[in-house]
Amino acid sequence: MNARPDAFTRRIARQVVYQIFPERFAIGRGLDSAGKLADPAYQIEGAVARDWNDSTMHQPWAQQFFGGDLDGIADRLDYLQMLGIDTLYLTPIFSAPSNHKYDATDFFCVDPMFGGDAALDRLLNALRPRAMGLLLDAVLNHVSDRHPWFLAAQAGDSNYRNFFGYNAQGEALCWQDFGSMPELNLANPEVRDRLYRQPDSVVQYWLARGISGWRFDVAQDVGIEVAEDLVASVGKRYPDALLLGELNGFSGSWFDSGQGFHGMMNYWYRTALLAWLGGEIDAIQMNRAISDARQGYGLSGLLCSWNMLSSHDTPRLLTSLGSSRRVRLAQLAQFTLPGVPLLYYGEEIGMEGGPDPDCRRPMRWNPAEQDQQQLEWTRRLIALRRANPALQYGDVIVLGDRLPGNALVYLRHTERPGEAALIVINLGEQPLRHKLLLPYSHWYDGVPLRDALGNCSDTRMAAGAVQLDVPAGEAALYQAFEPYNRYTFFKPRNGG
Amino acid sequence: MNARPDAFTRRIARQVVYQIFPERFAIGRGLDSAGKLADPAYQIEGAVARDWNDSTMHQPWAQQFFGGDLDGIADRLDYLQMLGIDTLYLTPIFSAPSNHKYDATDFFCVDPMFGGDAALDRLLNALRPRAMGLLLDAVLNHVSDRHPWFLAAQAGDSNYRNFFGYNAQGEALCWQDFGSMPELNLANPEVRDRLYRQPDSVVQYWLARGISGWRFDVAQDVGIEVAEDLVASVGKRYPDALLLGELNGFSGSWFDSGQGFHGMMNYWYRTALLAWLGGEIDAIQMNRAISDARQGYGLSGLLCSWNMLSSHDTPRLLTSLGSSRRVRLAQLAQFTLPGVPLLYYGEEIGMEGGPDPDCRRPMRWNPAEQDQQQLEWTRRLIALRRANPALQYGDVIVLGDRLPGNALVYLRHTERPGEAALIVINLGEQPLRHKLLLPYSHWYDGVPLRDALGNCSDTRMAAGAVQLDVPAGEAALYQAFEPYNRYTFFKPRNGG
Repeated sequence: MNARPDAFTRRIARQVVYQIFPERFAIGRGLDSAGKLADPAYQIEGAVARDWNDSTMHQPWAQQFFGGDLDGIADRLDYLQMLGIDTLYLTPIFSAPSNHKYDATDFFCVDPMFGGDAALDRLLNALRPRAMGLLLDAVLNHVSDRHPWFLAAQAGDSNYRNFFGYNAQGEALCWQDFGSMPELNLANPEVRDRLYRQPDSVVQYWLARGISGWRFDVAQDVGIEVAEDLVASVGKRYPDALLLGELNGFSGSWFDSGQGFHGMMNYWYRTALLAWLGGEIDAIQMNRAISDARQGYGLSGLLCSWNMLSSHDTPRLLTSLGSSRRVRLAQLAQFTLPGVPLLYYGEEIGMEGGPDPDCRRPMRWNPAEQDQQQLEWTRRLIALRRANPALQYGDVIVLGDRLPGNALVYLRHTERPGEAALIVINLGEQPLRHKLLLPYSHWYDGVPLRDALGNCSDTRMAAGAVQLDVPAGEAALYQAFEPYNRYTFFKPRNGG
Repeated sequence: MNARPDAFTRRIARQVVYQIFPERFAIGRGLDSAGKLADPAYQIEGAVARDWNDSTMHQPWAQQFFGGDLDGIADRLDYLQMLGIDTLYLTPIFSAPSNHKYDATDFFCVDPMFGGDAALDRLLNALRPRAMGLLLDAVLNHVSDRHPWFLAAQAGDSNYRNFFGYNAQGEALCWQDFGSMPELNLANPEVRDRLYRQPDSVVQYWLARGISGWRFDVAQDVGIEVAEDLVASVGKRYPDALLLGELNGFSGSWFDSGQGFHGMMNYWYRTALLAWLGGEIDAIQMNRAISDARQGYGLSGLLCSWNMLSSHDTPRLLTSLGSSRRVRLAQLAQFTLPGVPLLYYGEEIGMEGGPDPDCRRPMRWNPAEQDQQQLEWTRRLIALRRANPALQYGDVIVLGDRLPGNALVYLRHTERPGEAALIVINLGEQPLRHKLLLPYSHWYDGVPLRDALGNCSDTRMAAGAVQLDVPAGEAALYQAFEPYNRYTFFKPRNGG
């Protein structure tokens, strides 16, 4: 119950990460789409120029360009800091013909559409004085069929032939059978050297240039053994770097050895929350999903994983849930469950969008097109998280599956007396009026509790229990406060 | 699940403790209240003399005296042994102006109202041949504002100034802001020396004079670090002494290091049982409360903690629950859950009383004023506990949250084959007729089970399961018996 996260875990767990799809966030240097798309970088076969206000739903999807770039991101750091963001995660930025750049042809070069290497340096220089971090996106499992390695292999170069795998017919093995994405042969030590083992490998090269860590695509294809080898090689030189894997479901086994990726994208939470808020599962499964993650990922694995509700690969939250009220409840969970909140750009202003490419619409910067209530709510959640270490790196005790009704209920707490928060999300059609026993040792008899969301009246611990009264469809985030002048519940000598 | 308690834990876990509020239990040497209160000890300002049959509800509450003393306790040891008690716990007995004596002015002197040091020696001498233990009550967190240490501090003595803490305005920090109870500065090594570290400290002085251990007031204020320091210092010289803390809620963190108090007052059970029997929580929370304690306290911590349903600080059990039937169900849990039963004086005869001071009425000794059924029930529960080591120091497996209806169900078992008991408390309005799978290895197929309470028919294990049939509002305590003449289920060679 009381595992204490180490310093690395605490540092990661404090983060609030903002995910940007660079082609769609902002255009730098005061340009509009037309001005930016005049750049020679876009003068490639098949590219279609779009205006910032156009729809993204045009074929071929991957070749519609709106002009977003890294300087555009650097220009918007005040906005992101106002929101409370301290870390950016960018989907791929290396040279590639598509707008999403998952089809890289050169891992050592920032795409000129995004401003090239110089723009990345400008962005890093702008982030550094703000103490903001930058995470990039790496695909280790496969490359584009236009990548020089694959072209050399196809041309018969025997060394590069061994960079890939082949079936009995001699055809290159391809990711999910897409012929355009040949899979790398990660059993080949030279491939590992070039991708992550050597100082001049892809992974280490960009860490040396100043990024804070990596998100690794398709962990299920990369595999646990490669993840451990990667973390061992990279961790030696870059012990502070976050190395995080993508997996769309439950990730427990990825943490069994304690030697693999520090964290995973926690799509598991998303699956549970969307199903619960959408009425597909009840409170027992919802609450157990959180306990399962705690047990399977371990505290550190869970704290370093990303709590995400949407991404460039899914519909946007408002589109998935259909109501701003449910969006707010989902976000409350996202920002208070153990793990690092990953906010997909535009969710903070209530943008809508169905599956890819509709979820990749250009960011709305005109305040009239932004849901200001949603912006304020997101900012408030981040501020609440920043103000309470329990919400950042506290352990979790799941309680909602022991209550009647339909509520997600959990306590977060550190080992420091009183540093805790009780979250109650009542999805029931009735107020949740019930006594709840709290198996937590440091909210003593008489400790007063206040709902930081302002939905519920103050209450008070009574011999280990608290009387809940949370309106239907509402939530509460209870924290302790000290009502006395000459007494403190949480003595400094106890670490309080 | 198979942690084996050590010898210390087993010895503690065998105890049945009787809590006495000395001013209200009995008057020694054949005196009545009037005779006793003629003693000069009571001739202090504000003291009000009462008759043994008077109400306790007079202002000022702390200054009503009825005359109880330590010789009165020594006179009643036959009664306590008849009941099955082997250990007494007395609320404070040191010199203090009030009837409750939590406002001590001298920790090294038994109050003359209670007979002084000589009466304590007489009581210890009377307990020794009966192999009965005596536990006293220590307040380490604060003293009376009339204590010489505080008076010296107020008079400007710089050494004693450092015995206390102060807020920014220079006011002494006081327990829960009560100005009459300044908090001791336990960060000051000299305070620790005087309270518990030195051979002539309060804690060690009385252990040297023959008491068996201590109950420490307000553990949340004393804190875990002081508890560990205390157990380390005192345990070196008095390895057999029980050192137990008071906490009103969940106590899990107190056991994390394994170096703190041996046990805690388990108010957590009380909160759960009263809420469940009173209809405030259902069987899921009730059963989970037991699992939570087992997980959080650990087996040894749980076995050394006190199962208490009432005390000098709470309403009496019958008053809380409002029915003798529910009292009996609560007591069944108290005497069969892991932990040491703590019986507050008078509960065994069905005394009533609301919050302090109504719960501190003088003990009724006239059989006509005693509920003899309740006395017999309590004696029987203690006898059942004494007859089955599983009820004393066995581990617990909680099962009630996996059954329909509204039942608390748990198995106690030692590591010795067959030494077990299955407790079923059916609070439902229907008979609990259900098959229950028992994840316990030593009630083999065919082992017959008998309800020691006589409410249910004999039943029998069938391939790991048992068919329950417990009437509505009733309970069962199943134990195995050997029906054969030439066969035993529990082979002596297996430790049975």
